Amino acid sequence: MAAPSRAAAVLAVALAFAAGLGLRAAAAQTPTASAGPVDPALIADLVVANRVLAQEGLFDAYGHVSVRHPANPNRYLLSRSLAPALVTAGDILEYDLDSNPVDPKGQRSVLERFIHGEIYKVRPDVKAVIHSHSPTVVPFSVTRVPLRPVMHNATFLWVGVPVWEIRNAGGPGTDMLVRSAPLGKSLAATLGDKPVALMRGHGNVVVGADLQMAVRYAYYTEVNARLQALAIALGGPITYISPEEGAARDKNPGDFARAWELWKKNALGK
Amino acid sequence: MAAPSRAAAVLAVALAFAAGLGLRAAAAQTPTASAGPVDPALIADLVVANRVLAQEGLFDAYGHVSVRHPANPNRYLLSRSLAPALVTAGDILEYDLDSNPVDPKGQRSVLERFIHGEIYKVRPDVKAVIHSHSPTVVPFSVTRVPLRPVMHNATFLWVGVPVWEIRNAGGPGTDMLVRSAPLGKSLAATLGDKPVALMRGHGNVVVGADLQMAVRYAYYTEVNARLQALAIALGGPITYISPEEGAARDKNPGDFARAWELWKKNALGK
Amino acid sequence: MAAPSRAAAVLAVALAFAAGLGLRAAAAQTPTASAGPVDPALIADLVVANRVLAQEGLFDAYGHVSVRHPANPNRYLLSRSLAPALVTAGDILEYDLDSNPVDPKGQRSVLERFIHGEIYKVRPDVKAVIHSHSPTVVPFSVTRVPLRPVMHNATFLWVGVPVWEIRNAGGPGTDMLVRSAPLGKSLAATLGDKPVALMRGHGNVVVGADLQMAVRYAYYTEVNARLQALAIALGGPITYISPEEGAARDKNPGDFARAWELWKKNALGK
Amino acid sequence: MAAPSRAAAVLAVALAFAAGLGLRAAAAQTPTASAGPVDPALIADLVVANRVLAQEGLFDAYGHVSVRHPANPNRYLLSRSLAPALVTAGDILEYDLDSNPVDPKGQRSVLERFIHGEIYKVRPDVKAVIHSHSPTVVPFSVTRVPLRPVMHNATFLWVGVPVWEIRNAGGPGTDMLVRSAPLGKSLAATLGDKPVALMRGHGNVVVGADLQMAVRYAYYTEVNARLQALAIALGGPITYISPEEGAARDKNPGDFARAWELWKKNALGK
Repeated sequence: MAAPSRAAAVLAVALAFAAGLGLRAAAAQTPTASAGPVDPALIADLVVANRVLAQEGLFDAYGHVSVRHPANPNRYLLSRSLAPALVTAGDILEYDLDSNPVDPKGQRSVLERFIHGEIYKVRPDVKAVIHSHSPTVVPFSVTRVPLRPVMHNATFLWVGVPVWEIRNAGGPGTDMLVRSAPLGKSLAATLGDKPVALMRGHGNVVVGADLQMAVRYAYYTEVNARLQALAIALGGPITYISPEEGAARDKNPGDFARAWELWKKNALGK
Repeated sequence: MAAPSRAAAVLAVALAFAAGLGLRAAAAQTPTASAGPVDPALIADLVVANRVLAQEGLFDAYGHVSVRHPANPNRYLLSRSLAPALVTAGDILEYDLDSNPVDPKGQRSVLERFIHGEIYKVRPDVKAVIHSHSPTVVPFSVTRVPLRPVMHNATFLWVGVPVWEIRNAGGPGTDMLVRSAPLGKSLAATLGDKPVALMRGHGNVVVGADLQMAVRYAYYTEVNARLQALAIALGGPITYISPEEGAARDKNPGDFARAWELWKKNALGK
Repeated sequence: MAAPSRAAAVLAVALAFAAGLGLRAAAAQTPTASAGPVDPALIADLVVANRVLAQEGLFDAYGHVSVRHPANPNRYLLSRSLAPALVTAGDILEYDLDSNPVDPKGQRSVLERFIHGEIYKVRPDVKAVIHSHSPTVVPFSVTRVPLRPVMHNATFLWVGVPVWEIRNAGGPGTDMLVRSAPLGKSLAATLGDKPVALMRGHGNVVVGADLQMAVRYAYYTEVNARLQALAIALGGPITYISPEEGAARDKNPGDFARAWELWKKNALGK
Repeated sequence: MAAPSRAAAVLAVALAFAAGLGLRAAAAQTPTASAGPVDPALIADLVVANRVLAQEGLFDAYGHVSVRHPANPNRYLLSRSLAPALVTAGDILEYDLDSNPVDPKGQRSVLERFIHGEIYKVRPDVKAVIHSHSPTVVPFSVTRVPLRPVMHNATFLWVGVPVWEIRNAGGPGTDMLVRSAPLGKSLAATLGDKPVALMRGHGNVVVGADLQMAVRYAYYTEVNARLQALAIALGGPITYISPEEGAARDKNPGDFARAWELWKKNALGK
C-alpha cells in the first residue's frame, strides 16, 4: 500500500477511464456531461450504505457516502443534502471531480462534497468515500493519542491514521467545514495512501476499494476507537496489532458479504 | 454576542412588542390576557421539540421546552406538567413573563416555569428556551472542569458555559428546584448573553433564536459533553475549538433543516 | 429519618397491623393464612413496576420488586420466580414475613425473597422493596468509593448509602446469594433506616413508602451512579448534594406521577 | 475443576463415545459419516443461542456458537457462515472434530470452526462452545489487567481467565484468525479446564456443560468486564469474588431457565 506518486495516479485514472465499461467518449470529455445510467443495484447499495451508517450510529443527521461512477472515474455519485437515514434512490446526484453536479435536479448539494471529489482525484484505487462524525474518533482527533488498531477487524489501521488540522490549510479562522476544493485537496493530501484520516474536532474520512469495504472500514474504525479508549482507561501498556499482522490481514481481508447481508436487512427493515 | 444592558433589553422588548404581528394592543396590556391564537405549525413544532428531546435522551420524564409567543413577546408557550414524550398540541398553555398561566385550563403548570419567563424578560433575542437534565452535562456542573467545545457542531459553546450555583441565590438549603421568580432571575443573570448555562447538580438551560436552533444547541451540547469527557479520559492536552473558529461558525450556523426533518420523522413515527 | 429502634419498629408494626383496612383478625394470626384479595389496581402497578425496571435496564432476567399487603402488614406480594419483563398479574404470590408463600400455586418462589420479608419486618414505614443488579451501582459496591448524590433527583441518597458485605453475615464461603432469613436480616440491619443499600458484588436494595417511590428511588440511584462515575472520571473535587439540600427535598419529593405515567405507557406498550 | 490430563481427557472422550445415545458404531468410525438426526428442540435452541448472543450485543455480524452432537461426541453442530442474527434451523451443519463438514450442503463453512473442533477434542465435559468479539473483553485482552469476577453472576471466572496470544502459536505474522487446526489446538491448550479464555486483540471463547450454560457464561463475562472496567475507573482497591465464593457458586450455579425463557422470547420476537 505504498503512496502512489501524483503522476502514477494520473496515469491510473487515465487508464481506468479508458477501460470504463459503457463509457461514452464524447460525453465524458465534457465536464458537465453525465457518465450515463448506473446499474440500479449499485444505487441500491449506496442507499443501503447511507442507512447502515445511520443505523449503526456513525451518521446522525449528517455525514455522507459516495461511490465512484463505474463508467467514468471522473464522476461520482452522492445523495443531495439530506439526512442519510432518509436517502432513497431518487436522491442520488452525479458530480464531476470538481464537485459540480452534472444535473442538480433543483436540489441542494452537500456543502462538503469537495471531500469526495478531491479524494477521487488523487486516489484512483478508491471507489467509495465516507465522511462521518463517527462519535468515538472525535476525541482521538483533539488529543495527541494516535488511533491505533487493537482488534483483528480493524487491522487495516496498522498503516497509521493521520489527523488533518484544518488550520494548516484554511488558517485559524475557518468555520471548521470543508467548504472548498482547496480544503478538500489538503484533506486528501493528509489522507495520502491510507484508508482513514481523522479531521480535528470534526470526524473522519474513510475510503475503500468498493462501497462495502469502505462501510466496513468506517464501522470497525468506530468500534476500534471504543475498544482502544477502554484499553487506555484500564491502564498500562497495550499490545497493538503489529505491522506484520496488519499486512497479513490486508492480503486477505475476509468475508464481508456476511456483514453486508445482515446490515442490509436491518437497514431496509426486511 | 455582547451582553445587552438591561436598558437595551427593555427597549428591545418594547420595540419587538410594538412590531408584533397580530398584536392586539388592549389585550396585551392586561397581564392575564391571551396574545391570541398561534399558527398551528408552531404548536406542532413545539410538540415535535418535546418529543425529539425525549427520543434523543436529553429529556427523561422531566425537562421542558418553550417558545415565545410570535404575536406578543410578553407571552410564551409551554406544555402543562407532563412527560415530554406524551405532549400533544392540546397540552400547550400560554404564560405571561411572570409565568402566570393566561388560562390554566384546569391543568397543573410546570413547577420550574420561572426559568422560561425570567430568561424571556432579559433576552429579547431569545425565542425558545429548553431546560433539561441532559445526562452528560451534569458531571461538568459538579466539577471544576469547564464544558468547552471540541467538535464543529458545538462551536457555539466557544463563548463559555457558565455554571449556576443555586446556593448563591437561594442559600444552602434549597431543594435544588427553580421554584420562584427570584431563582429564575438569578439563573437568567448567570446565563447572561450565552446560549447555554449549566445548573449545578441539576442540568442546563439552552436558548435559541428559534425553536429549531435551541433544540440543535441542546442536542450538540450533550454530544460535545460526551466527546469532551472521552477526550479528557484519553489524557493529555486537548485542542478545543478556538474563539476564531467559534465566531466564524456563528456567522453561518449551517443547515439545520436537515436534522429537523429527520428528528421530526423519528419523533412522530412517520 | 432517624433509625427506629427495634422496639419502636415492632410497636409500629403492631399499630399498623391493628389499623389495617379490611383486616380479618383471625386469619391474620394464622401465619399461612391469606390477608385477602388485593385491589387489582395495586397488582397492576406491581406488574408495571416489574416491567418498568426491566425496560429501564435495572433488571435483566433477574431482580424482583414486592409490595406490602395493604390489608395486613405481615404479608407481602411478589412474583413467582420469573424474568420481570414477563410478569403478569397471575404470577403474583402472597408471602408472610418469614417469606413462606401463603399459597405457592405450584410455582417456584424467588430464592432471595428473604430480602423482602426481613426488611418488611424491621421497617414499618416501607411499603415496597426492590432488589436489583442495577448495573452502575455494582462497581461502587466493590470499591471504597461511596455512592453519593450529585443530582437533584437523587437527593434522597444524602443520608448515606451503606454497603452490605455478605462475608460478615455468612462467612467467607457463601455463594453470594441471600438464601436464608438470617442473611436477609443482616442485610436489613445494614440498610437501617436508609432508602438504599448496596450489596457487595451483587447489586442493591431500594425501599420506599409506596411502590412508585421505590421505583423512582431505584431509577435515580442508577442514574446518579452513572453521573457520579463520570464526574470522578473528569477529575478534581466534586460538589455533592449537601445534607441541607437533601433534607429540603425529602420534605417535598415532587411530582412522581409524571414519570409513572410515562413509564407505565412505555412498559405496557400503550 | 482440576485440569484433566490429556490421557484422562482421551479416556473420557472414549467413555462418553461408548455411552452415546443412539450411537451407530459403524457410522461413527467413518470420519465423514453423520451421527444421525438431532432432536429438533436442540437445533431450535442452537438457533436461539445465535440470536440471543446477537441481540445482547456479544455477536455483531460475526461470532459463532456450536453444540456437541448428543449422539456422538465426535461430531458437533454449527451454522454455516452467516450472520448469527439470521441463522435458522436449515443453516446448521454437522462437523467432525477435525472440523470437516459431514455434508457441506453446498454452503460455506465458518473459517474459524477449528476453535470448536479442537476444544471438543480435549474437553469431554464441554457440550457447547461460543466464540465472540464480546466488546468489553477485547480491551482486557490487550492490556495486562486480568479479567476477574466482581459480580455474583460471574463467579465462574474465579478460576482465572487466560489470554491466548496467537503469536505464540502462529508467529508474529498471522492475520489474527484461527484458520487451522494447530491454531485451534493451541487456543484449546490455553483454555485448559477453564470456562473462558480471551484471545488477544480478537475476543474470547466460552464453553459450557450445555448450551444454555455457555450462553449464560458468555453473557455474564461481558457484563462483568463492563463492571470491572468501571470499578477500575473509580479508582482504589477492588474486592473481587473470592475463590471460596466462586467455588460455592459453582456447586449450585442457580436458575438459568429464568434467563433463557426471557431471552428466547426476545430473540424470537414472541
